[in-house]
Order: sequence, then C-alpha cells, then structure tokens
Amino acid sequence: MSREGIEALLVAQKTDLFYLSGTSQDGLLFLPFEGDPLVLVRRELERAMVESPLPTVRGLSSLRRLPSCILEHIGKAPEMIGLEMDVLPVKDYLRFTSLFPQARFVDASEIIRRVRAVKSPFEIGLMRKAGEIGREVYHRAREILKEGMTEIEFGGLLESEAKSLGHEGLLRVRSYNYEAYTWHVLSGITGGIVSQSDSPMGGLGLSPAFPVGASTKVMRAHEPILVDFGICYHGYQADQTRMFSIGTMPTKFADAYKACKEIHDAVLTDARPGADCERIFMNTLKLAEKLGYKDSFLGPPGLQTRFIAHGIGLELNEFPFLAQGRSDPLEQGMTFAVEPKIVFPGEGSVGLENTVVLTGEGCELLTPLEQEIFEV
Amino acid sequence: MSREGIEALLVAQKTDLFYLSGTSQDGLLFLPFEGDPLVLVRRELERAMVESPLPTVRGLSSLRRLPSCILEHIGKAPEMIGLEMDVLPVKDYLRFTSLFPQARFVDASEIIRRVRAVKSPFEIGLMRKAGEIGREVYHRAREILKEGMTEIEFGGLLESEAKSLGHEGLLRVRSYNYEAYTWHVLSGITGGIVSQSDSPMGGLGLSPAFPVGASTKVMRAHEPILVDFGICYHGYQADQTRMFSIGTMPTKFADAYKACKEIHDAVLTDARPGADCERIFMNTLKLAEKLGYKDSFLGPPGLQTRFIAHGIGLELNEFPFLAQGRSDPLEQGMTFAVEPKIVFPGEGSVGLENTVVLTGEGCELLTPLEQEIFEV
Repeated sequence: MSREGIEALLVAQKTDLFYLSGTSQDGLLFLPFEGDPLVLVRRELERAMVESPLPTVRGLSSLRRLPSCILEHIGKAPEMIGLEMDVLPVKDYLRFTSLFPQARFVDASEIIRRVRAVKSPFEIGLMRKAGEIGREVYHRAREILKEGMTEIEFGGLLESEAKSLGHEGLLRVRSYNYEAYTWHVLSGITGGIVSQSDSPMGGLGLSPAFPVGASTKVMRAHEPILVDFGICYHGYQADQTRMFSIGTMPTKFADAYKACKEIHDAVLTDARPGADCERIFMNTLKLAEKLGYKDSFLGPPGLQTRFIAHGIGLELNEFPFLAQGRSDPLEQGMTFAVEPKIVFPGEGSVGLENTVVLTGEGCELLTPLEQEIFEV
Repeated sequence: MSREGIEALLVAQKTDLFYLSGTSQDGLLFLPFEGDPLVLVRRELERAMVESPLPTVRGLSSLRRLPSCILEHIGKAPEMIGLEMDVLPVKDYLRFTSLFPQARFVDASEIIRRVRAVKSPFEIGLMRKAGEIGREVYHRAREILKEGMTEIEFGGLLESEAKSLGHEGLLRVRSYNYEAYTWHVLSGITGGIVSQSDSPMGGLGLSPAFPVGASTKVMRAHEPILVDFGICYHGYQADQTRMFSIGTMPTKFADAYKACKEIHDAVLTDARPGADCERIFMNTLKLAEKLGYKDSFLGPPGLQTRFIAHGIGLELNEFPFLAQGRSDPLEQGMTFAVEPKIVFPGEGSVGLENTVVLTGEGCELLTPLEQEIFEV
C-alpha cells in the first residue's frame, strides 16, 4: 500500500471483509495504512460487534454518512483509496467517487489477494478440518453409490452428508459470473462435456440455465465416475477429486488415472518455496506428453485449460495459480489444489485432486483421503 | 433504450445473458436497438450454438477482438452503450471504456430488469413446475423431520430430496455480496436472530463466515420451525415458507401464523394490475398493527425489513418490490413472492410465503402447497 501511495483500503466485498475484520455482516471496512481500522455496519451491528475482534465497529445508517464517519475517524479526508475493482460493481464505484470527490481511487484487489494467499496456522487448521470432513464424505460415498442412481441424486446425497458433518454448503468464488458448487459428479459421457467454467470438464448440468455439474444421467457399471467435491468449514475450503466405478474401472481409464497420479506427485515434488508457478505447470505438460496424454490432458483438444493448480482458502480461485503466464514464485504458507485431469470426449474423464499447504520442506496434504480408485 | 439514446446493450452478466440469448456459456451479448443480436462466446462455442436460438453466435478468442467483431457486425462503432452497472465489476468496465474510447457508457440495468420483471407463459410454466417440486419437497419434509435432528441436517436432507426432483441447487441473486441458499431452517431461538441478509430473520448459520440459515442447533418439540426453501427449475425459482412443529405448535406462534396468513391474503387481494407497490406494503403495516404485531412484524424492533414481497424469476431479487419507497404500478405477468413474517427475539419466528403471478384477474398461486402448519 505504501509503495503504491494508497492511504487506505475501502473494503466492500463480503469475503475480504470477513478476512480483514472477522465479521461478514452487511458493512464496509475502512482500513488505513496508518491508524486503526474502522468497521461500519449497515446490518446487523450488535452481531458484528460480537464477531469482530477489531476495536472500532460502528453503525452506518446511510452510505451518505460514510465520508463524515471516515473524517471523524482519521481526522482528514483520504486522498488515495484502494478498492476491490475486480469485483466491486460500477454503480458502487460511481457512488464512492461522488462521495469522495477529492480522492483518487485505485485497484487494490491484487494487494488483498496477495496477502490472503499466505495462510496462518489458524487458517490452515480450518482447511485441514475441511479436508477431514471431505475424507468422511468420500468414505460414505462408497456406501451410497449404486448402479441406476442419477448423478444428481448421488451429488445431492453427498451434499446432505457433508452438511451434517459441518460443511457450509457454499463454495465461494471471486467472480461475479462463475458459480462454484459441490455436486460435480460426472459419469462416462458427461465427463467429456466442457462448459462455461474454467475447468477441464464441465458436465451436462440440469439445464442450459445451469449447464455444469451433475445431470439426470443414470450411472452404470464400468464407467468412470468423477467426483470433484469441495468442502467449506468455517469459511475455509478443501477441494478434492476422486474416481469411482461400479464394478471394475476399464483399463483405459485406470491407466489414465495412474498418469494423473504421476503428474500430481510430480507437482508436489516440484512445488517448493521460491519455485516458479508457470514452470511447474509447463513441466506437467511435458510429463503428460511423455505419458501419452498430450491431447487429452486438462481437457479435450482445443479446449484445454492452462492451469494445474489453483490457490484455495476462503475462495476457490485464490492466488497462486500454477498456470501458463503466471511466473510468480511460490511462498511458504500458500495453499492450493492440484488437479491433473484427463478427458476423453464422448467417453469420460478421470482426475485426481488434493489440497496442499506449502511448508519449508515442501507440500503437505490437507486432504487425507486415500488416493486409490474407489470401486464399489 | 430509444428514449435514453442507447444504441446497444453489452450484456456480460450470466443471468441476463441466459435470459436474452438462451445460453449461459462464458460469453457476451451485443444487443443493438436496431439489427441482429450478436453472441460472442469465449467458452464453449459449440455448446452455445446448440443452446441459443439466436442466429449469430461466434467465438471470441480475446476481449481485444471485441471492437472489431462489433464493427464487422453492425458496420459502425457504437456511440452509446448500455451496461449492467449494478453488477459489472469496475475492472471490466474500465476495460470496456479503453476498448471503445469513442463511446459513452450508461447504466442499462434498470431497463433489463424491467423487461425481465414481466414473465412469458413459458417462464411462468417453469416457475409453476418449480412450485410443484416445492410441494413435493415439503410433503417429504413431514416424513423426514424428527426431534433431535439439527437444523442443518434437516436442511441438507431437504436439499437432497429437492435435487432428486429436478431442483438445480443454486438460487441466484442479483448482487455481488448477497448469497441465497435453500437450507433456511430456523427453529425456536435461531428464528429471532437477524443477519446480513435483507430478511426479517437470518438465523445463526454455521460460522461467522456464513452467518445465515440453518445451524447445528438441535430441534425440539413444540418450538416453531420455519422452513423457507426455494426451488430452482431450469433456472426459474419458486420461493415458499411454511411452519413446522414437532408435536403441537404453542398458541403464541400459531396465533402469529394466523396473522401472517391474514396479511398474506390481504396482499393477494390488493395486488391487481395498476396497483401501487408501496401502498400494498403500507397496508400490511396497518393490518399488522391492527392484529397486534406492530413491533414484531417483519423483524425485531429496529431491524424490521421494509418489504412484503420481492419479484422472483431467474433471480431471487427481481422487480417488483412491494416495499417502502417503491411506488411503481404492478403489471400483468409479474411474479413475486409474498412473505409476511413475525419475529419474537429470543423465542422464534413464524411466516408464510408463496410465489404468485399477476393475471388480469389478480394473483394466481405458483406454489400449490397447503397453507396449514405442519405438525409432525
């Protein structure tokens, strides 16, 4: 903030607000570079005061009062304010510019996202707990999965098991158009379908209004069933993918899964503090080619995604991205989900995914689930 | 659009894109006031061409190509473009302004929302189907609810039943901060808790990260259990609330429910094409006062919401709002959810909610579920 001349952040997005203030009640956080932060709550003040450990939590009856609240708090009108321009709607931005006519506004989303990328032991603990819930959900999934069930029935039952174990039900994503969800169950042919999500496979979904994830396709024996089910515990997510089959998995898919496992392990070996994100990604392309999956790795030909891992925490698309064009160094404390996937259009797809935290020694798994194919 | 001098809309939000083009793949819609619409798809083009009935659906390899695609399509550079400024992030807006330096941008979100408020028979049919799924879910809920179950367990099981019947799992809301969800199960004391959502009661939720909806509170006999469970079918929602109790409902809550029913029926009587939204809302305040619920109607004292019904369709907060400060006339074909609720802080809350469509004759229910208290 200092380097960019930003005097203060005005935080409006709920997830950033929760991260920086401890409450996600309807409000704003004014966070000066020097001095105390100020939480302003539209609704519900009493609850926000209990939830937030910050010393100054006040009510904000109307947005018009924002400039005077800030003036009173810091004794001057701020001249350069950082906003979350990657998610803040234009209408709100125009309102802020009219409320602070003397101020310059700059995009501070990158600053916030970089801070959030490195997790504290407390955050890692919550993600570990999410991973443990995930293990239990997948164990129960082995009992639940039956031939003749539809993808969405199976996904719905997993969702219900997860909720009973403490899963919050929503997977937040930093985007105004991309919705995450947990019931990403794709079986056989639907595993080869691509959709609007930036993912190797999107699935059929239930309609063009929601064209991703589980569908009403009936699951049959001997087809690859991909279950990509994220868990959210106290706001923090752990993401994982495993393969199921009813009866034995056909050799073609079992072999491709072995390749995914090899690529997954290579990423976990390459990922060290200081390692270059893009280089790790490029290495997976080489390895996939060597293993004979050049055209099917990370999506069908022409629609392949360009990342092998995404940062994860309060949101599903945090920094870092182990991806093309992202030559940033990894840092200790970063958490990310590594997800090599192989797609055979018209037939199905396979994949393995785990969430890890980067320690001084390398990657530590936060998702303790067994890494075998679950044949039921 | 003509009245405001807008030559074209550039539609980026997924729900508007789906409404106006038939596809919700990753893309943009350029919709000129005169001439043919142009759908530009980043991912996945082939699928978007199948889903959209519009004649011109093309690929967009990079946003940089947007101006030339539009120039080629309409033969000139547009001078005044309408954007969805209520939801479009600042970053995207700044990108558009740099791509079209000669153009003026104006907020067209109100125009789009007004068009979307009046539903076609096709849309009403989908909402009716959502209402039928809702009826079935509540019928099954009577079998599922047992003493000793937690709110979130119950909510999760309802969610799983709903998915198996065709519910898409997400309830979309037009906001970057407000998340809707289905598992809004509040029992006894949690029904009196207010949260960040603009709703009479928010519930406890599972953590400060997600401080709304069902919690791990165990449900007991003879307490009011409020189930506000929306259904989404092919993108279209039907919203409803019913009261449950294990054993008999205490008189205090049963009486308050009768008052909700009376207020609900009064709204359905008042709502006619041409009727003033604000006036209908103000009448409910008078009626609530007459019935003895002035201080508990629509929330605890000081935190009462100022609406009695919200428009509903592809999103949960569409036009019209039957609310304070909204003196718009109702129109035939509008659909909205009427939800009188009464809150007793520290004790619980009750409510009734149904989704209706306004015909020439008045309100027609789209949620056919029985309106009694479900005592199990």
